[in-house]
Amino acid sequence: MSTALEFVKSNHDRYLSELKDFLAIPTISTLPEHKADMKRGAEWFARQLSTNLGMQNVAILPTKGHPVVYGESVRASEKPTILIYGHYDVQPVDPVNEWISPPFEPTVRGENLHARGASDMKGQGHAVVKALEALVKSGGIPVNVKMFFEGEEEIGSANLPAFIDQQGKKLKSDVVLNADSSILRPDLPALVYGLRGLAYFEIWVHGPRNDLHSGGFGGSVHNPAQALCELIAGMHDADGHVTLPGFYDKVHVLSAEEHAEMARIPYTDNDWKKMTGAPELYGERGFTTLERIGVRPTLEVNGLYSGFIGEGSKTVLPAKAMAKISMRLVPYQDASQVEKQLREYLRSKAPATITWDLKSLMASPAAIVDRNITAMRAASTALEETFGVKPVFMRTGGSVPVVNLLKTKLGLDSVLLGFGLPDDNIHGPNEKLHIPTYYRGIETYVRFFQQMSRS
Amino acid sequence: MSTALEFVKSNHDRYLSELKDFLAIPTISTLPEHKADMKRGAEWFARQLSTNLGMQNVAILPTKGHPVVYGESVRASEKPTILIYGHYDVQPVDPVNEWISPPFEPTVRGENLHARGASDMKGQGHAVVKALEALVKSGGIPVNVKMFFEGEEEIGSANLPAFIDQQGKKLKSDVVLNADSSILRPDLPALVYGLRGLAYFEIWVHGPRNDLHSGGFGGSVHNPAQALCELIAGMHDADGHVTLPGFYDKVHVLSAEEHAEMARIPYTDNDWKKMTGAPELYGERGFTTLERIGVRPTLEVNGLYSGFIGEGSKTVLPAKAMAKISMRLVPYQDASQVEKQLREYLRSKAPATITWDLKSLMASPAAIVDRNITAMRAASTALEETFGVKPVFMRTGGSVPVVNLLKTKLGLDSVLLGFGLPDDNIHGPNEKLHIPTYYRGIETYVRFFQQMSRS
Repeated sequence: MSTALEFVKSNHDRYLSELKDFLAIPTISTLPEHKADMKRGAEWFARQLSTNLGMQNVAILPTKGHPVVYGESVRASEKPTILIYGHYDVQPVDPVNEWISPPFEPTVRGENLHARGASDMKGQGHAVVKALEALVKSGGIPVNVKMFFEGEEEIGSANLPAFIDQQGKKLKSDVVLNADSSILRPDLPALVYGLRGLAYFEIWVHGPRNDLHSGGFGGSVHNPAQALCELIAGMHDADGHVTLPGFYDKVHVLSAEEHAEMARIPYTDNDWKKMTGAPELYGERGFTTLERIGVRPTLEVNGLYSGFIGEGSKTVLPAKAMAKISMRLVPYQDASQVEKQLREYLRSKAPATITWDLKSLMASPAAIVDRNITAMRAASTALEETFGVKPVFMRTGGSVPVVNLLKTKLGLDSVLLGFGLPDDNIHGPNEKLHIPTYYRGIETYVRFFQQMSRS
Repeated sequence: MSTALEFVKSNHDRYLSELKDFLAIPTISTLPEHKADMKRGAEWFARQLSTNLGMQNVAILPTKGHPVVYGESVRASEKPTILIYGHYDVQPVDPVNEWISPPFEPTVRGENLHARGASDMKGQGHAVVKALEALVKSGGIPVNVKMFFEGEEEIGSANLPAFIDQQGKKLKSDVVLNADSSILRPDLPALVYGLRGLAYFEIWVHGPRNDLHSGGFGGSVHNPAQALCELIAGMHDADGHVTLPGFYDKVHVLSAEEHAEMARIPYTDNDWKKMTGAPELYGERGFTTLERIGVRPTLEVNGLYSGFIGEGSKTVLPAKAMAKISMRLVPYQDASQVEKQLREYLRSKAPATITWDLKSLMASPAAIVDRNITAMRAASTALEETFGVKPVFMRTGGSVPVVNLLKTKLGLDSVLLGFGLPDDNIHGPNEKLHIPTYYRGIETYVRFFQQMSRS
């Protein structure tokens, strides 16, 4: 065992207590009232880079939104340079009353550490830093690394393209290690080589000028909440296909090899049902569950609002109704094309009894990474040595827009190596980090950097 | 002109300033934080009865919920006794940011007084008191009156049946004057002889155990918001008919006479469109707008909630979704029957991919009053003398459950004589009272009591 791995094993308790400090800072990027917390979060992380890792050029770099934390260690000449990407912002916490322990009071229950951001992705970000720290403490980092952690991943990374344009030279490297990822089970490592894209919209349906009394007016005007439900209901057919015109036109058929690789993933619908708690699974007819979330585009309602939603009854006929709706995109689909399809759908289906408007909130294409690049093989070896089994190659449902950005703007491939688990409940209440997997994650990162230094 | 009517004309300014005091008390019965305001509102009204009207037995009578204000003037032997019903509670004020002036800072703009409760129904309640005051100041009230104003009309009057059972003797009278009503236009008085009933429900649809990440799980489980929309969309067919099984079974066909009387009401769909601001009208095919709201049962969505509804985007796949749904009922329909129909609909239409539960929040049957009783004729004469035109007899869409209660429990008919207007925006933002109509309302009540003393 290398001394770096020994160092990791003897520091478990300190890691956990340090991570709790990081998690206690409510870095919710979408809420303006947490602006100061975002700054505190950035400073906490920057201190890790300068103090614990002795990095060079550590800085909190401004953007038009929340800042980027940057630091580098470029002392290993002739060795590859790895750009490490992550984010220090987290999702909002509603519904907050469903949290067993408060979202920003990190709490260990059993093998899990519960807090908002524990899995997505302060836990992963902290694991990378601790792997580098272990290497520093045992002779030095054997490759060059540049870390950049943004503060706007959970709100669509709107200022990241401009940041990458401005800082292209600083970010120059050979490959990206993106720690914002997950594996399949604690005993089954995985390497994600495909990610779905995202197109996120807000739809408002307007009916009468003001809220009306449902007794005096009910039945004489089209209720906007009803009209919105009618529009949403029409977005899927009876087979679970999305009905937007042309939605599947650019979707490629899965190759036989990919199909076979996905079928190897040891997962059953029963596992999925247990994990989600859904009474029965649902989805597009003709595809397995993993295909539905990995390689097929989907449309989800993320939020619904209309009228009176407090306790009790209010006999209101609402003036308007809102839905947040997003599509997960697969390769060759284009967010602006999907927006056109949604507008076309609304134009053709919305009745004259209401008006509507549509706002695009987020857009990013899907991404696929070549499974044969050096860094992918280094990650595969590191996972196999740590977990004792070969990792599964997979495509997942989530979106990591930065993967596309770094490919397009800097020509960099990304290796997605992170240790979230499917039941971590990221974005939901009681988000958790599986502590033994987090420790294994630190070891994997140590081995990954060591592998890369040999390449 | 009688001295009572002269008194009314010379007191307009004082009436308005006094009414503003009443409206400034936020008597929102549904919100527990307004419990003390409810008490203040009851006390304000009780003081009017004792101090301004010199009533006997004035009391704030407790119920299991908000109290009832009671007072009587029974000094006119041989004359009829009129039970005057009203309520001093008001609806909540959301969406509060759409109010031009704060809902509890009564503000005159043009001919209107804007405040929550101005029209529904503190304005009407105050008008009755001022009419009685004018009679007191000019020789005395020529009939016997008993006033009872409840504090739970806007939340379904749950404690009113028990109150009427307990206080039946005290409430003994010949007929009810219910001031919680409206006319058609400032120049067109109306007498409401039919009211729709109400059945109000809350439906929850449950899918996965917790909120999930829409990328990682989207497309693999049935989104509860989508499922709820699908269920709601199916509740109306393409002709605007409600699809609950058996919903129209007990609905009677309109008589030729009623049909003709409704057709006489000088109202156009264009007026209705302008008043509501809806882009086009909507409703059950085969019926006019006034028939749709007066004599046909309807189903409305009063509220919708699921997932993330704040600013911006959150990629959540919600664990649950909620709708508040209510039906307006016509004579011979029964709220418990309608609940069974809704349950049957959900049972047959809800897919196995979700679960649901249904809670009944309010229920009251429809009501019809004989147009030929003495008090109805007295009201008709009073309206014609005040407005200079014969009133239109009409059936309206709202529900006044107390009309049924007083008929069933005490055998009393109700005359619905109130002065709200269709565009008063009751239950919505910027509720208003048309001040000239309010003054005419006071005069009409004076004439009504005088007419009743001659009967």
